[in-house]
Amino acid sequence: MRGPRAFARTLCRGAPALWPRGREGARGGSVVAGAKNAQAQQLQQQTVLVCPGSPSSSSFSSSASSSSSSSPSSSAVLLALRKHFLPVSFHTAAWDMAPGLDVGSGTRDGGLLNSYEAEPDRVAVIGSGNWGSVAARLAATNARRLPYFQDEVRVWVYEEKLSNGELLSDVINKTQENVKYLPNVKLGPNVVADPNLETAVKNATMLVFVMPHQFIEGICQKLKGKIRPDAKAISLIKGMEMGDDGPRLISREISEQLGIDCSVLMGANIANEIAVEQFSEATVGYRDDKETADKWVQVFGTPYFQVTHVQDVEGVELCGTLKNIVAIAAGLVDGLGMGNNTKAAIMRIGLKEMILFSKLLFPSVQDATFFESCGIADLITTCLGGRNRKVADAFSKHGGKRSFDELEVELLNGQKLQGVLTAKEVFGLLKAKDWEESFPLFSTVHAIATRHLPPSAIVEYSERAPRKIVGTPELHL
Amino acid sequence: MRGPRAFARTLCRGAPALWPRGREGARGGSVVAGAKNAQAQQLQQQTVLVCPGSPSSSSFSSSASSSSSSSPSSSAVLLALRKHFLPVSFHTAAWDMAPGLDVGSGTRDGGLLNSYEAEPDRVAVIGSGNWGSVAARLAATNARRLPYFQDEVRVWVYEEKLSNGELLSDVINKTQENVKYLPNVKLGPNVVADPNLETAVKNATMLVFVMPHQFIEGICQKLKGKIRPDAKAISLIKGMEMGDDGPRLISREISEQLGIDCSVLMGANIANEIAVEQFSEATVGYRDDKETADKWVQVFGTPYFQVTHVQDVEGVELCGTLKNIVAIAAGLVDGLGMGNNTKAAIMRIGLKEMILFSKLLFPSVQDATFFESCGIADLITTCLGGRNRKVADAFSKHGGKRSFDELEVELLNGQKLQGVLTAKEVFGLLKAKDWEESFPLFSTVHAIATRHLPPSAIVEYSERAPRKIVGTPELHL
Repeated sequence: MRGPRAFARTLCRGAPALWPRGREGARGGSVVAGAKNAQAQQLQQQTVLVCPGSPSSSSFSSSASSSSSSSPSSSAVLLALRKHFLPVSFHTAAWDMAPGLDVGSGTRDGGLLNSYEAEPDRVAVIGSGNWGSVAARLAATNARRLPYFQDEVRVWVYEEKLSNGELLSDVINKTQENVKYLPNVKLGPNVVADPNLETAVKNATMLVFVMPHQFIEGICQKLKGKIRPDAKAISLIKGMEMGDDGPRLISREISEQLGIDCSVLMGANIANEIAVEQFSEATVGYRDDKETADKWVQVFGTPYFQVTHVQDVEGVELCGTLKNIVAIAAGLVDGLGMGNNTKAAIMRIGLKEMILFSKLLFPSVQDATFFESCGIADLITTCLGGRNRKVADAFSKHGGKRSFDELEVELLNGQKLQGVLTAKEVFGLLKAKDWEESFPLFSTVHAIATRHLPPSAIVEYSERAPRKIVGTPELHL
Repeated sequence: MRGPRAFARTLCRGAPALWPRGREGARGGSVVAGAKNAQAQQLQQQTVLVCPGSPSSSSFSSSASSSSSSSPSSSAVLLALRKHFLPVSFHTAAWDMAPGLDVGSGTRDGGLLNSYEAEPDRVAVIGSGNWGSVAARLAATNARRLPYFQDEVRVWVYEEKLSNGELLSDVINKTQENVKYLPNVKLGPNVVADPNLETAVKNATMLVFVMPHQFIEGICQKLKGKIRPDAKAISLIKGMEMGDDGPRLISREISEQLGIDCSVLMGANIANEIAVEQFSEATVGYRDDKETADKWVQVFGTPYFQVTHVQDVEGVELCGTLKNIVAIAAGLVDGLGMGNNTKAAIMRIGLKEMILFSKLLFPSVQDATFFESCGIADLITTCLGGRNRKVADAFSKHGGKRSFDELEVELLNGQKLQGVLTAKEVFGLLKAKDWEESFPLFSTVHAIATRHLPPSAIVEYSERAPRKIVGTPELHL
């Protein structure tokens, strides 16, 4: 067995080199486009990720660096920090596994390598908007460097003619850039844009669904009979529709329509920040198939995009959907000019309603899911900077006199609000089940959005809201 | 039994009237100074709190109001919203209990009234800084209106001579304002500032401790033999010192030094926002004595300051203390110019370390505590706007070249950072227990604050941190 120090040494010598970056560094947004067999050589020239405390740590300020290398207590800290890397967990496996580097025994990949030896997986991304392009970029990065994926990542592009007359898919294939939805970011040399849905998914074993949720039904119809029966799916789509007895989750829709397993990926994931490799996290929610969940972590995970998984597909997906209602509430509070106490209180109450709603509808949902990136972290991101917050802020500032629809058109440049629609869907269910009184924040957001209550009601309600819900004690977190 | 409609009617007629505000409304910061027996009459003249949907709702925009009163679905929403008030919970009891108003049977106070009939409680506040003044104001408001408190709330003031030569305590007693630490806010006619510690606590049954934590030991020494043996204490103090085998919590210190029960009150509580009656929440953590916890809720709770309690004194207190370390990390991220994804991820990781640390040291700590105001809500507030965040942001922007001490003096106008000190105390324990590797964020904050690592390490570390802690599975939330 290898001890902590040996692993720490390995980490400092080897692991950072697995993640080369362009000269622009972390924000350059460009990944070195090396073929796998030329990778090792390139890596040695272009490594910029640092090992804390190493003399060559280029991103340390010189004063800190010298302090770092001279102080004994600093060494203790650094040793401690290095030791963090000892525990082997699934999400670090990916970047320890580049071929040809001494990173330990074959067991470190959790057995993935063996399972892939027969036939490398092939990833297809269905959708090429802003988030779809970032997802394709992540998948392409991993497909290039990991032996158990085929290099090519095919992306289905909803074809558009650009203002210069060129077709979007042609431009992506020529420039490696989605000039319309993710300009100035290289997707990778192994990304192939394909406007034909059928050829885009041909032979793919891993299907990534990422598009506005209203298109999913039509896409699934078209995909029937065209995909491999052993394919696995993952949904990055936020949204839901309400059926008679509860939400029809997108993952379930895909799974049922196509007869395949479908996981979800959600988290504090503002796409443009991930595109320029700012540190983020995400959560894969899976139903039963842990091995496939591990694969999805390999498809998307990088050191700057830490992916973990939980066996709670509904919990993860509902987090991604319901948080938009809370973001509307947070935006209303901002627009009212209230302070941080109030906003934090509203976010907390909103989180509790998210948990309650999820657990009432899906008793399998776990409390722990809400501590993952898909839970509180995504809620924070969305309530600080998301588009729902932005439009609600404006709505509130206008005293509720201009509609959400109007402000959406004005402020979002063609993008769509999800929160108002989700609040409507949720309220429909709350009403049908006579649950409104257990979800005062969700109900109030809907009442405000439909202009039955003024924006100030979001706080007036909260001043009076009971904290505990009578009759559902098992749901008190 | 009274049905929901009856209660809703009562709420609309009566309950808002229990909470009179000055003409300035919610932000006026002035509470009507009526004697209890003149209260009801005043209330009818000065009620500005609205009942949603009521035609007289002064804060509704006229368009929304008319839409509200005309739409049937609006009525359904309003009825639903009113129904929220039906469940009787301890934190709504306070504002249902004003004498002489028809708000239901005597059972709605949870039996408190009976227990107080013999001898009304007497509240003393020990400390009169910014937060102490707000606490005194809240207690004074409730002491005036509730029969089971003596009207007078005595506040121990650390005497200071003001620039005009007057004594701070004299000015407070003359103007009802703490002109130095909470200017322009009336504390209440029943607040008495007392520079003498012994007379300040004389006959008090409920002692509120609110001062910088380094003074607590000296104060407790002076209080020995001067307080009632049956007195109960509550600490609003954030901070801790580290003993040989774990943190010495302030509540425990007070309890042991004085031989009395001590609870804590923590939450997303920026004092100045509460002073002007912006909606906030707080959490009382108590050890065993639920009845006393109920009393503390009565002392502090108002409709705009919702107080709940949990039987987890250590969990609540550690939340209040540890969140300052996370706020340093959040400030560093801000100063680095990272986006919301990264900040949210850092906050989430910090929260998980708070939980792990608390549960390792106090196995009784409950996960649910972190969903209360003292948990995620306080963390959010502090990471968005607190002083730790502010100084860490500046530290980061200066590339770690100027010390925290220097920036603290420059930016905080005499106030003290808690986060750096707390990180140091915590790191001492982590080192002694060989736990550094389980708390990479806490450890990294300390290493950065002591300039053994550069500010950028907060993100570099996070890119590589393992999410799961090996060997402590019971602590995985």
